Amino acid sequence: MSPADRSSANGRFTFFCRIMRNLLIVTGVSVLASFAVAQGQPQLNLMPMPASVQAGTGQLAISQSFSVANTGFHDTSLDEEVQRFVTQLSRQTGIPFRPKAGAGATLQIHADHGRQAVQTLGEDESYELTVADSGAKLTAPTTLGAERGLQTFLQLVQITPAGFAATAVTIKDQPRFPWRGLLIDVSRHFIPIDVMKRNIDGMAAVKMNVLHWHLSDDQGFRVESKKFPKLTGMGSDGMFYTQAEIRDFISYARDRGIRVMPEFDMPGHSRSWFLGYPELSSGTAPYTLEGGGIDPIIDPTRESTYKFLEKFIAEMAKLFPDPYFHIGGDEVDGKQWDANPKIQEFIKAHGMKNNQDLQAYFNQRLEKIVAKNHKTMVGWDEILHPDLPKTIVVQSWRGQKSLAESAKQGYRGLLSYGYYLDLMWPAARHYAVDPMADAAVTLTPEQNSLILGGESCQWAEWVTPENIDSHIWPRNAVIAERLWSPQEVKDVASMYRRMNAMSYELEWLGLTHNSARTEMLQRMAGNSDVEALRVLADVVEPVKDYDRWSDQKGPIDFHAPLTRMIDAVSPESDTALEFSDLVQKFVQNGLQDQAVEAQIRGYLTTWRDNDSRLHPLLEQSSLLQEDVPLSQNLSALGAAGLQALDYLDKGQTAPDAWKAQQITVIDQAKGRQADMLLMVVAPVQQLVQASAGQGQRN
Amino acid sequence: MSPADRSSANGRFTFFCRIMRNLLIVTGVSVLASFAVAQGQPQLNLMPMPASVQAGTGQLAISQSFSVANTGFHDTSLDEEVQRFVTQLSRQTGIPFRPKAGAGATLQIHADHGRQAVQTLGEDESYELTVADSGAKLTAPTTLGAERGLQTFLQLVQITPAGFAATAVTIKDQPRFPWRGLLIDVSRHFIPIDVMKRNIDGMAAVKMNVLHWHLSDDQGFRVESKKFPKLTGMGSDGMFYTQAEIRDFISYARDRGIRVMPEFDMPGHSRSWFLGYPELSSGTAPYTLEGGGIDPIIDPTRESTYKFLEKFIAEMAKLFPDPYFHIGGDEVDGKQWDANPKIQEFIKAHGMKNNQDLQAYFNQRLEKIVAKNHKTMVGWDEILHPDLPKTIVVQSWRGQKSLAESAKQGYRGLLSYGYYLDLMWPAARHYAVDPMADAAVTLTPEQNSLILGGESCQWAEWVTPENIDSHIWPRNAVIAERLWSPQEVKDVASMYRRMNAMSYELEWLGLTHNSARTEMLQRMAGNSDVEALRVLADVVEPVKDYDRWSDQKGPIDFHAPLTRMIDAVSPESDTALEFSDLVQKFVQNGLQDQAVEAQIRGYLTTWRDNDSRLHPLLEQSSLLQEDVPLSQNLSALGAAGLQALDYLDKGQTAPDAWKAQQITVIDQAKGRQADMLLMVVAPVQQLVQASAGQGQRN
Repeated sequence: MSPADRSSANGRFTFFCRIMRNLLIVTGVSVLASFAVAQGQPQLNLMPMPASVQAGTGQLAISQSFSVANTGFHDTSLDEEVQRFVTQLSRQTGIPFRPKAGAGATLQIHADHGRQAVQTLGEDESYELTVADSGAKLTAPTTLGAERGLQTFLQLVQITPAGFAATAVTIKDQPRFPWRGLLIDVSRHFIPIDVMKRNIDGMAAVKMNVLHWHLSDDQGFRVESKKFPKLTGMGSDGMFYTQAEIRDFISYARDRGIRVMPEFDMPGHSRSWFLGYPELSSGTAPYTLEGGGIDPIIDPTRESTYKFLEKFIAEMAKLFPDPYFHIGGDEVDGKQWDANPKIQEFIKAHGMKNNQDLQAYFNQRLEKIVAKNHKTMVGWDEILHPDLPKTIVVQSWRGQKSLAESAKQGYRGLLSYGYYLDLMWPAARHYAVDPMADAAVTLTPEQNSLILGGESCQWAEWVTPENIDSHIWPRNAVIAERLWSPQEVKDVASMYRRMNAMSYELEWLGLTHNSARTEMLQRMAGNSDVEALRVLADVVEPVKDYDRWSDQKGPIDFHAPLTRMIDAVSPESDTALEFSDLVQKFVQNGLQDQAVEAQIRGYLTTWRDNDSRLHPLLEQSSLLQEDVPLSQNLSALGAAGLQALDYLDKGQTAPDAWKAQQITVIDQAKGRQADMLLMVVAPVQQLVQASAGQGQRN
Repeated sequence: MSPADRSSANGRFTFFCRIMRNLLIVTGVSVLASFAVAQGQPQLNLMPMPASVQAGTGQLAISQSFSVANTGFHDTSLDEEVQRFVTQLSRQTGIPFRPKAGAGATLQIHADHGRQAVQTLGEDESYELTVADSGAKLTAPTTLGAERGLQTFLQLVQITPAGFAATAVTIKDQPRFPWRGLLIDVSRHFIPIDVMKRNIDGMAAVKMNVLHWHLSDDQGFRVESKKFPKLTGMGSDGMFYTQAEIRDFISYARDRGIRVMPEFDMPGHSRSWFLGYPELSSGTAPYTLEGGGIDPIIDPTRESTYKFLEKFIAEMAKLFPDPYFHIGGDEVDGKQWDANPKIQEFIKAHGMKNNQDLQAYFNQRLEKIVAKNHKTMVGWDEILHPDLPKTIVVQSWRGQKSLAESAKQGYRGLLSYGYYLDLMWPAARHYAVDPMADAAVTLTPEQNSLILGGESCQWAEWVTPENIDSHIWPRNAVIAERLWSPQEVKDVASMYRRMNAMSYELEWLGLTHNSARTEMLQRMAGNSDVEALRVLADVVEPVKDYDRWSDQKGPIDFHAPLTRMIDAVSPESDTALEFSDLVQKFVQNGLQDQAVEAQIRGYLTTWRDNDSRLHPLLEQSSLLQEDVPLSQNLSALGAAGLQALDYLDKGQTAPDAWKAQQITVIDQAKGRQADMLLMVVAPVQQLVQASAGQGQRN
């Protein structure tokens, strides 16, 4: 589903989002108390938070003699799982383990059964993990549950004054929802298998269990079809997955407890099909991947279309063992149907009212083909139609209301509204979205059980293999928590603390969400010192929702470099959050806390002085010239904030003229620059207002 | 060759090395002037500096339409070479290239011939590269030369205000020495193939052409032998290269113009052989990899030894196609020979005087076996003996005198003295070592021609796959320049500027010398913010030479984690160098330059305030507790420096009592802490002395 033209469907994200987030933090019910471990224990950085956590006493030392024993069900898959776990633990701790022969194992694993050859929806993922100072025990009904438990164990291991250790604890855990997915669009920008694999590793670390692979769209068809080789031969830029690569990838994901569901978007979002097979379309060739003009869509009125799909879906159903098969179905732009007299005739002849009815007819035909191949059809909101069997699954990008509507009609559903990672929302905003909230609260328990979970979505208009990790992580971890952990787990401050810890853990897995940022800044800076550039990059965020599209003239060139600062910076600025928190604290404590003021001054001074250091660098790089005003605005904000503090320190009320000047500075800094927003404007504004008498020292 | 017990052989590196380096920078003859491009042109960050560089006018834009055409000799190897080059250029610039069909190629390559199947010593590596604003042309007698030229082209591409571009220039280039190697010891710590490969990429980037693979030593035998499987089966910890991996690796290196010469160290440094084959040793089993007691060595008196070596060398000679075969021969500890009556009898019976004669006998026998397998024998200094044929090559760890001695006797030689990367010397010190300097200046031209070049050496007592890159790079680039570039290229300031640029380039290749440091600091810090930790890490260096060994009691555990701060920090602190330069400038300009003083104060303030931020972190991590005094000392230095500046600012001479106090602080900070040195002591001492009247404002 392309996000274009849908910005109004999503709540606009305002300039004051940081303040909203702070309010969330302040008002968030601290239900974690019920999961909290005893005082004096190290904080647990678990994400997703397990269903039940009981504090133990002491800690289990992790030393060179660390070892694992398997006392239950045993197969190659579990052996490899344990080996991966040990390798990862060794990487995190830097300890090359050398288990002492004959000694009792540090960690005992007992699984009752193996996992199924093809992972099923609802396959048992539960586990129990007990860590004591003498050893740890992990039990699970299946080796899939053991995999989940091993990920939890990795998160328990921390450096302590006495060496690496796992905190003593008893955990009983199972997921809240059986379907916890991440969609990755590989059509707009191709994402190579190695990048896909490291994201699978990240998903496993946060206990997600479905990779929804958006494999075809207008801009590229990414799967080799042996029956229809022109799908990739003409419908891609040469970048696609071979069937061998796909089989290997599915096996890789299966080993980590992750299903791979393919999506072939039909009848819209399908331009790439028509380069090789124009006869499938509702209009006339030639088509190009670049597009332009009206969106071509599949012609559902010709029997030849279904003959093609019979063969194609049979081939793909065999390639992808998952029982679910996603046919897209979103955003069908009916202009080609309207313009085609034969299609309009067909609509009339079959007593249909409109294009929606025609799409429903197409979906019914499609569903039969999918079912014949022993798969369950999944599609976006738009496929919902009473003529379709109740076995299908509806994925909602529209919201909980749409999801509840499906459930009331007896259809199973998935929520993706609120989980669009490409909208550049802060983690807290995603975290607040619950599949069972809003409209869903009116459902009966039976209807509730039809809500299978949800999926975060990484649409790929603005990502490359280089920066995709930083668009997905670490924010995806909080969506994973929303879908795994009990509904009551929603303390925002705790979430941020744990997400930040998780972010480091994810880098140890090989994800590059932080390291690639450094490299990209170095590229912009022409391989020179990036310290001053980082000061700027650390306090900006990309514009939100679909605002980046507003500057776009004509079709996007999906082969253009994505190497601007907006492409490198984090969707959410840690520094701005920290600064904002400091200012909140300072204002709330009556503008008196000198230690906090010193910290605030530290930031403001760095920002004020940064432009003079950074400006020469910005001027000499074509990739940075557009950021000159941004850097100047940051400098001006730093100066304004410092002057405000000076007035406060002297006990003076800042004069009106000065305040008016600062408001001009602030208004200018609020504006979008180079498709980015300065995220420290609001707290500086607070300081200015406080110094002008809208807040006084006690 | 183990570095143990050799610390006295190398000049001690003093606490004041930073000052020495500054003197080098100040006094270094700026011969680069003859290579400099016209004023107003961007600086060229080439390393190694080509033999001849002529500035052109303008620059060649590197855009999406960048393309390469081959107008000369053509084979798969060259195609792959060009593909790698384009991929690398795309990574550096972030531009996904889409050449315009039919347009004239941006870069034309013309090679006269292909390269030889097995790379020979002296194979033509020359090339000419002309870059103009309209296009670039690379010509070379061989595709090997073209490979060298493509690496130069990559270094010419920089970000400019008008986008990425290659500076217009005409380069004629060829190496000064035909043998430019890097030794990597994989016995003490096993280095996996992927890490070896990225180091090959780094070598190719700086035009090195020999990987000297130190494959066996006391601590581990790392090559699969099908004839003698116990060599790795019992003589390693299970980590070794299969023959298939080795063949693949050699082919990888060959593609990048790098020979792979194996070394099997004999008759000393060979404990690992004896676990599986104790009958080869001069003493009695059992042996363990951990060692202890006297060093076991090969028994050269038994015919069975030579039967073993006949078979073994025949197998290895086939596996490694390079014409040179290194037999080690260094540091033979004769205690086992002394203690074995049969060996002593043999010595007498053959009219030998001592153990040295016995080793010479062994080497003669060995040389015949090596020669029978069509290989040329290479060994360390100790093998030099008039009974050996003049075809052998002597590698000198002892110095230019030893090298010159070999040449006078008609032997070819390689210099490694001065190029030991594991000694933690600053780049400038390695850079100053020239194979033709000192004793070599007395040689005749003919004798001079026997000096083939040199090799840097990365002995692996203190490296792991995680930190080996940071021990090799970027310093290895300056040794590469010493061996490739004209002897007159020796300006130290230029070298540092270009080495720093090269360091970024090397990270784009996948080397991890910078990124791994960040990860290691994060591990120590328990996955929390490392900013304050980095402030400390940035101003320390590991102790020099073999000083780290002095704390070692008993045999080293080569499986212990190497995760302390000393294992993460750079061998050379950029920050300390920059600070030291600032203080020099400040003092030399009569203590008046306010802008420089402000920069100095910036550093000092950060250091003074850092301990209070860092201390809690240090206390909570077992890996950081040893660094508490280091952090306190840095803080104290910061305070001392600031007070000194305060006296200077006020025009006062600091009182004697204050000065005495500061000298105590400085003396304490000079000391080794946690096997590291604080590298900013000397410049702070300069400030203190200046404030106490040993330097006054004009």
